[in-house]
Amino acid sequence: MSASTHSQTTPTARGQCEAIDLASKIALIDGHWQPRVVAEMNDYQFKVVKLEGDFVWHKHSDTDETFIVLDGELHIDFRDGPSGDGSIVLCAGQMAVVPKGVEHKPSPARMVK
Amino acid sequence: MSASTHSQTTPTARGQCEAIDLASKIALIDGHWQPRVVAEMNDYQFKVVKLEGDFVWHKHSDTDETFIVLDGELHIDFRDGPSGDGSIVLCAGQMAVVPKGVEHKPSPARMVK
Repeated sequence: MSASTHSQTTPTARGQCEAIDLASKIALIDGHWQPRVVAEMNDYQFKVVKLEGDFVWHKHSDTDETFIVLDGELHIDFRDGPSGDGSIVLCAGQMAVVPKGVEHKPSPARMVK
Repeated sequence: MSASTHSQTTPTARGQCEAIDLASKIALIDGHWQPRVVAEMNDYQFKVVKLEGDFVWHKHSDTDETFIVLDGELHIDFRDGPSGDGSIVLCAGQMAVVPKGVEHKPSPARMVK
């Protein structure tokens, strides 16, 4: 699961005041690296996604990015982070925030939700 | 776990670029209804909290509020939500967003993280 900034509409259309089962939402996704919005909070979106296979190095100039791992193991490499270059590993029940402007490359060790 | 708006400092002090194990952070908390910040994303904070016993009816005039249940069962009653009055139940792996201005009362059925 990841969270990032976005626009908003009505409370009901934004998935508010309802219980959202994250595993059920993920089960609706066929492909990988295809995030789906499940709810919005202010001008932020909560998305679920299935990851498999490396992603490209990239950065977000205008926002931090949060990853919460529900299942699997996600490696994230950083370039020029707050402690220099480095990498972390996220397992189920773990989260990380990538600061805006920091180049990063998510690499699932196996299929990640 | 819940997310809400707040201020920010440096990336490292904000818990960024590191793996955060949510269960381990919660294990450090002794009491209930005592949220602890584990990371910040832009001007938002991610907090972990243990809940037991009903909370009071309240609302947040300036922000939506997000609950993600890691363990246990959380009932949330609403007054004047997008579909009128109502209530939802969140189990582990489920989340909900309470719109700003909507009165709500969280009631853990048993100890909730």
